[in-house]
Amino acid sequence: MARAWHLESRPKGMPTTDNFALKPIDLREPGKGELRIANRWLSVDPYMRGRMNDVKSYVPPFELGAPMQGGAIGEVVESNADGFAVGDMVQHMAGWRDEAVVKASDVQKLPPLDVEPQAFLGQLGMPGITGFFGLTAVAEAKEGEVVFVSAAAGAVGSTVVQIAKARGMTVIGSAGGKEKCDWVRSLGADAMIDYKSDTPLIKALMEAAPDGIDVYFDNVGGDHLDAAFACANQGARFAICGMIDKYNVGAPTELRYLPRLIGNRIRVQGFIVSDYLSRAGEFYEEAAKLLQAGKLRREETVVEGLENMPDAFLGLFSGKNRGKMLVKL
Amino acid sequence: MARAWHLESRPKGMPTTDNFALKPIDLREPGKGELRIANRWLSVDPYMRGRMNDVKSYVPPFELGAPMQGGAIGEVVESNADGFAVGDMVQHMAGWRDEAVVKASDVQKLPPLDVEPQAFLGQLGMPGITGFFGLTAVAEAKEGEVVFVSAAAGAVGSTVVQIAKARGMTVIGSAGGKEKCDWVRSLGADAMIDYKSDTPLIKALMEAAPDGIDVYFDNVGGDHLDAAFACANQGARFAICGMIDKYNVGAPTELRYLPRLIGNRIRVQGFIVSDYLSRAGEFYEEAAKLLQAGKLRREETVVEGLENMPDAFLGLFSGKNRGKMLVKL
Repeated sequence: MARAWHLESRPKGMPTTDNFALKPIDLREPGKGELRIANRWLSVDPYMRGRMNDVKSYVPPFELGAPMQGGAIGEVVESNADGFAVGDMVQHMAGWRDEAVVKASDVQKLPPLDVEPQAFLGQLGMPGITGFFGLTAVAEAKEGEVVFVSAAAGAVGSTVVQIAKARGMTVIGSAGGKEKCDWVRSLGADAMIDYKSDTPLIKALMEAAPDGIDVYFDNVGGDHLDAAFACANQGARFAICGMIDKYNVGAPTELRYLPRLIGNRIRVQGFIVSDYLSRAGEFYEEAAKLLQAGKLRREETVVEGLENMPDAFLGLFSGKNRGKMLVKL
Repeated sequence: MARAWHLESRPKGMPTTDNFALKPIDLREPGKGELRIANRWLSVDPYMRGRMNDVKSYVPPFELGAPMQGGAIGEVVESNADGFAVGDMVQHMAGWRDEAVVKASDVQKLPPLDVEPQAFLGQLGMPGITGFFGLTAVAEAKEGEVVFVSAAAGAVGSTVVQIAKARGMTVIGSAGGKEKCDWVRSLGADAMIDYKSDTPLIKALMEAAPDGIDVYFDNVGGDHLDAAFACANQGARFAICGMIDKYNVGAPTELRYLPRLIGNRIRVQGFIVSDYLSRAGEFYEEAAKLLQAGKLRREETVVEGLENMPDAFLGLFSGKNRGKMLVKL
């Protein structure tokens, strides 16, 4: 019998495994235009924390007592829809479960790139598209500029680092711990800041970027954002993609260097990947070239088994992942 | 003998009159291409606080023990420069003093508008240009949108209110006290928030803007900025012009609603009036029409006498001014 993780209670602050319950779900037969899909890979993403709150946002909140959702890659095991055959690998949003019956119109076949299917949940999916358009369209980062990327060892950040390097920028990243920093350096970052070290972040960034930063790609918020304000050059652009720092904390963001926004004409722009999905082709064109040239590398942190999905999710907030966090079924 | 206010010590936090000293200055005879000017009006502006710190910014810091500077309107009393005659009224940056010898190339004749000369230090000068381009170019405010303006009774804010109304926007302002709120309402504001009242600012803004705000013109920072984040609609633009809230305070800005920046794709842009001075003609064209139609009104808070200049300056931070704060000599 199919099973799905249900939201049992809304977390206050940091979620715990008690907020989730794995329960059987009753799958109907696929109706006309529907597919039955056996999931192979489940996506684990920071934004899911927002959906656990009962707050109107850019994605609707998860319903209490109902199965949760999220990105997933699966195999068609029963097709009642034209154009889909048993064995097709597809991407869809009925994650957090092992099997689903889904409308074919809510399902995408995987793009024809020669990579493992789970890559389409990470670097070659939403996180990659987020990084590409955040850097190039939102922040308008240009060759020769200095780019600071927080959470640079994450799925989004590690893609930003490599695209920025391929486009001729100087890249400074931040990550937690020596191992992650070494890995991002191996991807091409010119300097790395270990935010778990004793050096205050602002001091570390000033040392890593003695001529200041022109672009900040923010996955973190909080003290990273403040350090970016402290070091931003004239006309700097900040692309604000996530604030994982704040997802579990009610405390306000404290910004000491915010007034530099004025004198330095800084532009801060929030964005959501869905605004750029219609232009995803531009990303795949550049990604294909970079992949072929060996300039777009990725890592995955894989947790095995549906029953470990909540642990994988909680691991995002303690920095357990290098690259994309995935659950393999 | 001419006298000028000197910066005696750099204020920590809120300045006091002890930071300033009025001392005689020795004026040389005007050399070739120079003018001697008797000041009639001195500009008093919040941004001057920044120049009292020893920090590199968009204007250089005042030097310790030297005369301070600022906008001024004066009369030419001795000319050694082509194109300037005794009796000409001019604008220049040798304020905080009663008389100055200045290069003619650093002086502007007043634009040919039929208003009192001191207007060119306020609504028809830097503050007006700031308001106009902040609203129209930085925030790209459009007809039908909802605009929130903080410090709406100030020189910048009261101009923003009237230009926004003339362009068909809904305008919500904030000001301290009933009298100021009534005045801004009389300028056309659709709703006013008295930030000195007991109602929390966010609650007051949510009530005043039940459909949210599309544009925020920020003169204040702090809790006003946070309230704007709390109420901002999809695609809202913030023009950040000043943060008077923070000029005297080392404490960080606390933003509780900053994460709304992401989901609502908010754009926050800092700016400086000098970026738009080359386009001042656009402002004067619109201002002349509005003046003629009686749709651009102004008030001035006038303090008499050079010796009261520091008090006038300090008065900015306790909200003593309605419209432009000026010192008359």
